[in-house]
Amino acid sequence: MMGAAAAAAQVSDPIAELITTYHELNSSLVEELAEEPSPLEFMRYVARNTPFVVRGGASDWQATKTWDVQYLTQFLRDHSVNVAVTPLGNADAPTLDERGNTVFAKPHEEEQSFPDFIEYLTKQETDPDFQGSEIRYAQTQNDNLRHEYRALFSQVQRSVPFARIALQQDPDAINLWIGNARSVTALHRDNYENVYVQVAGRKHFVLLPPLCQPCVNERPLRPAHYARRQDQGRGGVAGGDDKNGNGSDANNADLELVMEEDADDVPFATWDPDNDQVNATKYSHLATPMRVTLEPGDIFYLPAMWYHKVSQSANEEGVCIAVNYWYDMEFSGPLYPLVSFVRSINSMPEESSN
Amino acid sequence: MMGAAAAAAQVSDPIAELITTYHELNSSLVEELAEEPSPLEFMRYVARNTPFVVRGGASDWQATKTWDVQYLTQFLRDHSVNVAVTPLGNADAPTLDERGNTVFAKPHEEEQSFPDFIEYLTKQETDPDFQGSEIRYAQTQNDNLRHEYRALFSQVQRSVPFARIALQQDPDAINLWIGNARSVTALHRDNYENVYVQVAGRKHFVLLPPLCQPCVNERPLRPAHYARRQDQGRGGVAGGDDKNGNGSDANNADLELVMEEDADDVPFATWDPDNDQVNATKYSHLATPMRVTLEPGDIFYLPAMWYHKVSQSANEEGVCIAVNYWYDMEFSGPLYPLVSFVRSINSMPEESSN
Ligand SMILES: O=C(O)CCC(=O)C(=O)O
Ligand SMILES: O=C(O)CCC(=O)C(=O)O
Repeated sequence: MMGAAAAAAQVSDPIAELITTYHELNSSLVEELAEEPSPLEFMRYVARNTPFVVRGGASDWQATKTWDVQYLTQFLRDHSVNVAVTPLGNADAPTLDERGNTVFAKPHEEEQSFPDFIEYLTKQETDPDFQGSEIRYAQTQNDNLRHEYRALFSQVQRSVPFARIALQQDPDAINLWIGNARSVTALHRDNYENVYVQVAGRKHFVLLPPLCQPCVNERPLRPAHYARRQDQGRGGVAGGDDKNGNGSDANNADLELVMEEDADDVPFATWDPDNDQVNATKYSHLATPMRVTLEPGDIFYLPAMWYHKVSQSANEEGVCIAVNYWYDMEFSGPLYPLVSFVRSINSMPEESSN
Repeated sequence: MMGAAAAAAQVSDPIAELITTYHELNSSLVEELAEEPSPLEFMRYVARNTPFVVRGGASDWQATKTWDVQYLTQFLRDHSVNVAVTPLGNADAPTLDERGNTVFAKPHEEEQSFPDFIEYLTKQETDPDFQGSEIRYAQTQNDNLRHEYRALFSQVQRSVPFARIALQQDPDAINLWIGNARSVTALHRDNYENVYVQVAGRKHFVLLPPLCQPCVNERPLRPAHYARRQDQGRGGVAGGDDKNGNGSDANNADLELVMEEDADDVPFATWDPDNDQVNATKYSHLATPMRVTLEPGDIFYLPAMWYHKVSQSANEEGVCIAVNYWYDMEFSGPLYPLVSFVRSINSMPEESSN
């Protein structure tokens, strides 16, 4: 009987109350640990659906110690890899099309020789004479480190022990991300527990908890993808024509947006916490985005269903490299249905004022 | 990007959807463990806010092995204890008053000698010639096992190791419950993680998860308490007058309900899953109450904020005895704000249909 629920005072705006109550009860700083948590300690964070970063937790991984441009170029000299190509570094991102409509822009994907790909990244960052008309990012997210890049897999952990033991499973996917500072991953969420390991360069995460769904202005966007124009060659490293390529438009000389007429809309967050006056909802100002920058060797726990926007800084070689482990989230228990409930309530038509 | 949220189809009744989604993803059987969980295993249940019972987990506790009527009578022969006295076994329960209004009835509380108290319980259960005009229950819930009953405390565990280690705290309260089959604890919820240990007799729990708040018909009830009528003696063990005492009314010969005119309303569940046609809301039929009976020696984990109604069966001696450990729940993380959100949404005025 003790601790019975407080008086049922009627709340004028339950969504506003939800977001402010959460922020009152939770820090907006990402907790920093000096060493890896035990499985039990990790489970406490999972239970609270709360992120943390282990500074230097992966600094003795072979990947962290050995993956530089020269090593990878040599190691993968005969590999070709899938590369996401966009004009603005906007793979899988809400993007204004020529008519001013916000569409969901998927990258042009193509196979490139790994040495060419990584040389392009580094030149774009480090060679002032080289501009490059397009942005390239290896970001397939399809368990690529156990498939496309399997040659490298023995240089990272097969699973992250504290997560494997706590969650009683092996990762559903292990992904390698190789890009430079030109790529940004737009705000979105995944139904995974995510253990993210920074290998080279830095990543900058902006985070919102799942119940901030009403802040992110999720809208159904028409899907589109980039395609190379038929009458143009590839914007390669050597391409002198590319130096002055226009990177400030959703289309550029090489790439055009092609609408996917028959595909379903993609519901996607359109508010950007870094540009918070645009596409804001009436709840966006209540969000308190958490920010964390990962340095090489850091291990970051991003709990299931958290919104994250990720930008990157290249290292002195001009690249940013990370590996992440996706573990299936728990769909039993109350969290998943409750987070879906917030979304359902938020998508109800506004009551006509009376 | 993988596993992005499903299409934002508009849901016609988000509360109904919430409850049915939860039930689709969760079992309605209480999990049975054959031995105590490790702290990590326990933490997985806490993370899922999901109950379990450890059959026989406390069967070697000294309390379980030694607490019978004779032992306790002897051990506490000089003690007087706080007893909750009601006409119907309805301590802290929604109750119809004389005018047919549902009020929140608190028990009459008085000090009784422990031997008299326990003799009353046993006679009421085992002596067909003894009726007793009232129901008695030792149920103070104020950490009584470390205070009022501290003489007995060394015969139970000071804390439950798996919970102490997982939750990193000692119990906020440890409570002893001594009653017989006439008492029922009405459906309610507490902001505690509850580890409940059955010592003698059996307890029957009916359970609903926190997000079933819209099913329980929480209403603000006027508070009242029982008081002995001034012109009556106490209904004691020896009292011949009591044999035919009327136990089927909210008042009886001895006890009357006194309204607490100046006190605030008590928001309280008024739906009873065992009488589900009465006081139902439009969501009550969606609830799938979980049921578990605790046998002596069982340890039950009742997660924070779960609704529970508890009835009891006396053992052959005519008593039912339990001990429970309340650990502070975690208010950080999303669960507490989300459960409050369900309540806020459910208490919004119905939209006028259009
Ligand atoms: O590193 C990135 O660019 C995005 C990472 C991401 O979205 C993820 O790990 O889920
Ligand atoms: O045992 C009972 O009668 C009620 C138990 C209860 O409500 C609790 O442990 O919170």
